[in-house]
Amino acid sequence: MKKKVRISAYNTNDQIAAQNRALFADHRVFVLNLIGSPGCGKTLLLEKMIGEFRENSGILVGDVKTALDSNRLIKSGHPQSYGIETGGGCHLSAGMIRDHLDRFDLSGLDYLFIENVGNLVCPSSFDLGENTKVAVLSVPEGDEKVRKYPTLFLNAAAVVINKIDLLGIMDYNIEQVKKDCRAHNPGVKIFAVSAQTGEGMERWLEYLRGERDALLASG
Amino acid sequence: MKKKVRISAYNTNDQIAAQNRALFADHRVFVLNLIGSPGCGKTLLLEKMIGEFRENSGILVGDVKTALDSNRLIKSGHPQSYGIETGGGCHLSAGMIRDHLDRFDLSGLDYLFIENVGNLVCPSSFDLGENTKVAVLSVPEGDEKVRKYPTLFLNAAAVVINKIDLLGIMDYNIEQVKKDCRAHNPGVKIFAVSAQTGEGMERWLEYLRGERDALLASG
Repeated sequence: MKKKVRISAYNTNDQIAAQNRALFADHRVFVLNLIGSPGCGKTLLLEKMIGEFRENSGILVGDVKTALDSNRLIKSGHPQSYGIETGGGCHLSAGMIRDHLDRFDLSGLDYLFIENVGNLVCPSSFDLGENTKVAVLSVPEGDEKVRKYPTLFLNAAAVVINKIDLLGIMDYNIEQVKKDCRAHNPGVKIFAVSAQTGEGMERWLEYLRGERDALLASG
Repeated sequence: MKKKVRISAYNTNDQIAAQNRALFADHRVFVLNLIGSPGCGKTLLLEKMIGEFRENSGILVGDVKTALDSNRLIKSGHPQSYGIETGGGCHLSAGMIRDHLDRFDLSGLDYLFIENVGNLVCPSSFDLGENTKVAVLSVPEGDEKVRKYPTLFLNAAAVVINKIDLLGIMDYNIEQVKKDCRAHNPGVKIFAVSAQTGEGMERWLEYLRGERDALLASG
């Protein structure tokens, strides 16, 4: 019985995700779902992208409690950043995204960035209607995370390995991490960056611009 | 309907947890449930405790996939370390613990250390029958985690702040973190340690010895 209810809950999420996806496609909005551990640097990554995307993007930030991250983004100069408190929930759902879309004029957006709840497990299994799932890793977490938390890496089209400024002082085999990512998904795009120092950020921004261009060309 | 099923699932977990707890009490085993983000250093913390507890402890290590961590502990010299693969599950359950207890001669153990799945959210809500929930934080994760993930800190009797060797090179307000912990639980015991360098470890080990002594005295 438990199984049945679970399947039905997933279906409902998938149905709403499909509606979200159709709405995003109508408005030509390229949507990213950023998933990573607590403290891997998702918010700082977004802060460092504001210069590029201030005018043409919206941001939704999920957290169990507080609006600390969305407030940080507003303070950093992003006008359209909103927090979603899950109230104990371990992941964002397609319904939570849908319920916050009226905050935006979608026809004015090129990108919607969704920062999921800090969690390497549960958010991987919930489609939000995004174009691309992005896994965010960070050097201090250790280099075996791809093997230990495979679901996300089977589904992520892009992986950002953040905090590479710490590679010099920590034991972290980045080549092994890349190899593990490709073992799960041979076509995955991998970006080694330091949101802190800016290293590698230009290539990541280029990827985002290219993906949106491809979306427009395909429509 | 979804709610009803959930409540019943929790009750079943609580019932098994109560059975586990009674069994541990019968055998005078002091049981800790270590909960923290992926990469906060739970396994290294345990590795650095082996010298003290090699002979008189068991270890159960939960992971979504792989037995990397339990193998690490065996390689480090702990003879009674076993992995529990959750197969996608985001937390250990009381039933998973129960199903692995026949690996131990409980009457020969003083301690059972349980390393939960790396996740700051879901494991907080599942009683395993432990004496003490321990929250493990780490400096690179950032100093706002207690506010953003409150459930764990309402329930944890002890908090280990790990990787304090990185305090010098990272922006981390440890006094604010301690204050946030005490705001959730005024009686919480807080240990600032570096499992890597050994700093602060002696006080943490003393606490564990003291808690087990108190358990014996109370019986």
